[in-house]
Amino acid sequence: MANDATPRRKRSGGRAANARRIRAHAIEQLPFHVPRNPDAPTEPLAPEGVAAIHDTAMRVLEEIGIAFLNAEALEIFREAGCHVTGELVRMDRHFVLEMLSRAPAQFTLTPRNPDREITIGGQHMVFVNVSSPPNYWDMETGKTPGTRAQCRNLLKLCQYFNCIHVVGGYPVEPVDVHASVRHLDVLFDKLTLTDKVAHAYSLGKERVEDVMEMVRIAGGLTEAEFAARPHMYTNINSTSPLKHDQPMIDGALRCIRRGQALIVTPFTLAGAMAPVTLAGAVAQSVAEALAAIALAQYVRPGCPVALGTFTSNVDMKSGAPAFGTPEYMRATQMTGQMARFYGLPMRASGVCAANVPDGQAMWETSNSLWSAVQSGANMVYHAAGWLEGGLIASPEKFIMDCEMLQQIARYFSPDLTATTPDDLAFDAMAEVGTSGHFFGIQHTQDRYETAFYQPFLSDWRNFEAWERDGATWTVARAHRIYKEILTEFTPPPMDPAIREELSDFVARRKAEGGAPTDF
Amino acid sequence: MANDATPRRKRSGGRAANARRIRAHAIEQLPFHVPRNPDAPTEPLAPEGVAAIHDTAMRVLEEIGIAFLNAEALEIFREAGCHVTGELVRMDRHFVLEMLSRAPAQFTLTPRNPDREITIGGQHMVFVNVSSPPNYWDMETGKTPGTRAQCRNLLKLCQYFNCIHVVGGYPVEPVDVHASVRHLDVLFDKLTLTDKVAHAYSLGKERVEDVMEMVRIAGGLTEAEFAARPHMYTNINSTSPLKHDQPMIDGALRCIRRGQALIVTPFTLAGAMAPVTLAGAVAQSVAEALAAIALAQYVRPGCPVALGTFTSNVDMKSGAPAFGTPEYMRATQMTGQMARFYGLPMRASGVCAANVPDGQAMWETSNSLWSAVQSGANMVYHAAGWLEGGLIASPEKFIMDCEMLQQIARYFSPDLTATTPDDLAFDAMAEVGTSGHFFGIQHTQDRYETAFYQPFLSDWRNFEAWERDGATWTVARAHRIYKEILTEFTPPPMDPAIREELSDFVARRKAEGGAPTDF
Repeated sequence: MANDATPRRKRSGGRAANARRIRAHAIEQLPFHVPRNPDAPTEPLAPEGVAAIHDTAMRVLEEIGIAFLNAEALEIFREAGCHVTGELVRMDRHFVLEMLSRAPAQFTLTPRNPDREITIGGQHMVFVNVSSPPNYWDMETGKTPGTRAQCRNLLKLCQYFNCIHVVGGYPVEPVDVHASVRHLDVLFDKLTLTDKVAHAYSLGKERVEDVMEMVRIAGGLTEAEFAARPHMYTNINSTSPLKHDQPMIDGALRCIRRGQALIVTPFTLAGAMAPVTLAGAVAQSVAEALAAIALAQYVRPGCPVALGTFTSNVDMKSGAPAFGTPEYMRATQMTGQMARFYGLPMRASGVCAANVPDGQAMWETSNSLWSAVQSGANMVYHAAGWLEGGLIASPEKFIMDCEMLQQIARYFSPDLTATTPDDLAFDAMAEVGTSGHFFGIQHTQDRYETAFYQPFLSDWRNFEAWERDGATWTVARAHRIYKEILTEFTPPPMDPAIREELSDFVARRKAEGGAPTDF
Repeated sequence: MANDATPRRKRSGGRAANARRIRAHAIEQLPFHVPRNPDAPTEPLAPEGVAAIHDTAMRVLEEIGIAFLNAEALEIFREAGCHVTGELVRMDRHFVLEMLSRAPAQFTLTPRNPDREITIGGQHMVFVNVSSPPNYWDMETGKTPGTRAQCRNLLKLCQYFNCIHVVGGYPVEPVDVHASVRHLDVLFDKLTLTDKVAHAYSLGKERVEDVMEMVRIAGGLTEAEFAARPHMYTNINSTSPLKHDQPMIDGALRCIRRGQALIVTPFTLAGAMAPVTLAGAVAQSVAEALAAIALAQYVRPGCPVALGTFTSNVDMKSGAPAFGTPEYMRATQMTGQMARFYGLPMRASGVCAANVPDGQAMWETSNSLWSAVQSGANMVYHAAGWLEGGLIASPEKFIMDCEMLQQIARYFSPDLTATTPDDLAFDAMAEVGTSGHFFGIQHTQDRYETAFYQPFLSDWRNFEAWERDGATWTVARAHRIYKEILTEFTPPPMDPAIREELSDFVARRKAEGGAPTDF
């Protein structure tokens, strides 16, 4: 009877188990946790090199100055005793260093689900989805302008993947939603489809204040509770060379005044809006960032800030920006040294110039991600889904990048490099000797389920097994997983009253006209 | 008239220039040079961890022992005072460390073209092509058994790419050539199509002696000149766990006795032929390697040797080997620490489990290559062309890997992280100020041609330009370049008399029956 039943049970059991597995989880992944990077950073600069870049950045701030196209900032700098001439602000290094001394070495960000709280700083390394591409590419659609439906799908990936810790910006710009109300719709989607740390674009008063209000509502917080600690953040870019514009600084001031966090990320392409030499480009980037951070620390001493870097180079033949290059890697590592010199948390990025999720996309992204690791970066923007220098968001690329992010998280695990007697396994080697194998011994049996990282996207079968199963290349496997995740996805729980309050807020603000679109 | 002429001249000039460029060089590449890795290695082990792995390796050699299936080696160990019981050799740590103290920290390998001389050790990092896959894959053929024609094509790539420094093994096994004479035909091809450092498989007396003889002839050397310094090398693998077989040890002894170099590379898959824990797998690998290196240093004090690593893990579900995993990276870095502890040059690899040159292939290969960099490896085997865990050689993958290798070489350039006043570019920033750009200024004009790495395979154009030009994914671009290189290829010069002598040697050895095939 057992003999009769076994084959049938096996067959149907196998199929049923597969079906159940697909229904339960499209993929196996590591639990949500913020990885800690135990490696000593790669430091291409000698201490004198760090000192030279610091001195150059200080001279830029003292002698050349930074333009602030923001009247309030100019007034504050004047009050602080800086030299303000028109829109140009020059500040001496003592002021800058005093302001930097107020900045915390690390801080937390607490979203509506407190289990998703993250720390920015120290050995912590958090990953953020791609933000802001105006276009979307997948294997079925090709390149198309972004839509709200695509944006929602990418938000589901952000929530689904435990290796994504922060839901930054719009994972794709939904250009089918009018710019005046886009932030309201996307933030409603983001705060209902995800429960991770959110972000506000500093693109005018209404956008940043609306987002803060929605994050407050989603967390069920009073204004006092909201302002008491950072629940979200904004990221501002300078307008290189040496300029901060009106809306970015306005949004930064609004965020820090309500207790939220600020990341300052100059976008300095060496050879275009920064010197063609990397030390110069990094010095300029540091100067631009520190000017805004000094402003923030003057306005709100001790406010949570991070130093961002986005220094890459252009293709000198065409002027096209390049990403994940050797130059990009070194600039990121050098900026990491500067961030540690100033005692600031650091943000980097996971980027590429490739137009589709192919080999080039992976080596460029891998270069940028490993340079983030090597630089001791605490936050990695665009870590999943970025293509075409940030002009395309792609779900397949998102899935492929998450495989790399999981591998990086696993790479950090102290288990891999432990040297306890159990790890050294002398007794196991003595047991096996010179002519056995380790598959069957107790030392292996006790550990085999967790000893090694299990990828969800890599195909490790031999060529023939892979071919029989359809000879599916990585990008097509990623596409299939994307679809399975959308089928499987369930939003995180939210109190219906809070959801209604959010919904009402969006309706009211839409009725009021949303945000001006003349930025 | 200028107006009339300009467009036509521009058009035809553009086409003609393109045609000329293609005829002259399929790609632009960096000149032949051995890169020097300036980075401090990544060291996941604390000094106590290094000491613990060392102590475990020594206990393995002292208490468990290593089997040597080679009568001559057993006799030598007995003479040296080691404990020999049957095929099992136990040696104490004092003997091992005394033998290791004889090994040089670095050595040179001088091929027939002395301009291609390389150094193994120190900061030097040389790249070797994929060796030994029995199969070939390209976009046209799919997977097929290797042929001599394919092997010749891959040898041409080895010679063509300046980032390949050593022509290791058979870049694909030409299974259409009988195994008894395969080494003769491939070495003839290798020594006539390339002028870089060559390698002999230690698979029986005839193969290794024939190859040494052919390298001697190709270099136009007397036996005394050949034996006076290393011109080539062999790589041997242990038969893990804890065993060295007859032909490998035989070949190693033959090479070092004629003054050539030896690399010992255990292939220890954690969980299969080594402990499931990485510290144990690395300790076993080190013990296996040091046993053979001790033998070599006893026989020929000061002979050039390197410590190889090939510690990865298996997929515990299927038993399939995995490559380029987080575990692989850490094992490589840990082995790098051990190599430095023993003062030995180190060999690592560029590997993946992927079956085709897609995204997975690139992240796995990138992981393994960057771990080689981080471990301070001096020689990277399989650095171009490897697929399916070493069962496939692919020209497209070769081209894609060379793009990564060039980027690594460029990454090492001290120019990127220099901080002279010219690099810091304060004056350039002062000149541009807050509202210019850097394209046109003298500081940029003086440097733009060499400031940034120029890839030969990456496509940095925007999506629309890339799409208009055929929307070609990386692998197809690599295929096209492969074909262009074959068209363009010219073999390095060789004295006709030497070529004839080589040819005569091959004919004579074939007439004698080549090598036995009962290995």
